[in-house]
Amino acid sequence: MKELSEQLQETLHHEIPLTVALGLTVASYDGLALELHAPLTSNINHKATAFAGSLNAVATLSGWGIVWCILKEAGIAAKIVIQDSQINYLLPVAADFAAVCARPESAQVSRFKKMLLKRGLARLELRAEIREGGQPAVTFRGRYVAQLVK
Amino acid sequence: MKELSEQLQETLHHEIPLTVALGLTVASYDGLALELHAPLTSNINHKATAFAGSLNAVATLSGWGIVWCILKEAGIAAKIVIQDSQINYLLPVAADFAAVCARPESAQVSRFKKMLLKRGLARLELRAEIREGGQPAVTFRGRYVAQLVK
Repeated sequence: MKELSEQLQETLHHEIPLTVALGLTVASYDGLALELHAPLTSNINHKATAFAGSLNAVATLSGWGIVWCILKEAGIAAKIVIQDSQINYLLPVAADFAAVCARPESAQVSRFKKMLLKRGLARLELRAEIREGGQPAVTFRGRYVAQLVK
Repeated sequence: MKELSEQLQETLHHEIPLTVALGLTVASYDGLALELHAPLTSNINHKATAFAGSLNAVATLSGWGIVWCILKEAGIAAKIVIQDSQINYLLPVAADFAAVCARPESAQVSRFKKMLLKRGLARLELRAEIREGGQPAVTFRGRYVAQLVK
């Protein structure tokens, strides 16, 4: 069976064609955090740093991907959408970059799955970060909604 | 002399290559609002609606574009970056879409330009919207920073 991270990358490239233009790859998922990579070249702007829209897109997908992994592991079929997000661009990103989204603690994940199975709909708030030279360069908070597929 | 909107489109396509992948075009700038367009096909997701990351990127660029237009009209050379943003995805967008960013009222624009020329740095908060079937589908608020180029 394919690794979850490999399945996620295929899903993203297949279902959201822009992820190919972003050069997005799923670097790792260890059950604790998901790490997505993107090259600077595909996402460069006029200041030779990463375009804010690309940074946001990769951060948004890291949160989406964590929800996808949680549901896949639990064998729950649901559609996932983002409801809202906030992003802070703290430092320019002048190299290939990684967005890391941590899986929430078990109790929160359990509540999310329980609510989803009971009500058919559940929300999960996630935080992601893009670092540059050891410093947080982008901080992101997104709220995602999963809706059970019957 | 080329229209400001045409100059802006050339600038975006030249300086941020991803805008070509987004299919971004500058539809209009009338001195009151800037309207950017993007086709659904380039930005589609697995639910046959627009990918959240694309909606955010186009909204982000509509704010950036308004600041660019304000500075261009005033003949001020400055670099523009986004500092932070918030976005609400209220409805799915199932067609080609437009992000509209209104130019702030004159008094606010005057303060922004005055501050920029005096301090070399100034901030502007902007709101953009993407509508679908007459309803707001995406609302966006972004803070932009302009830094004088000496």
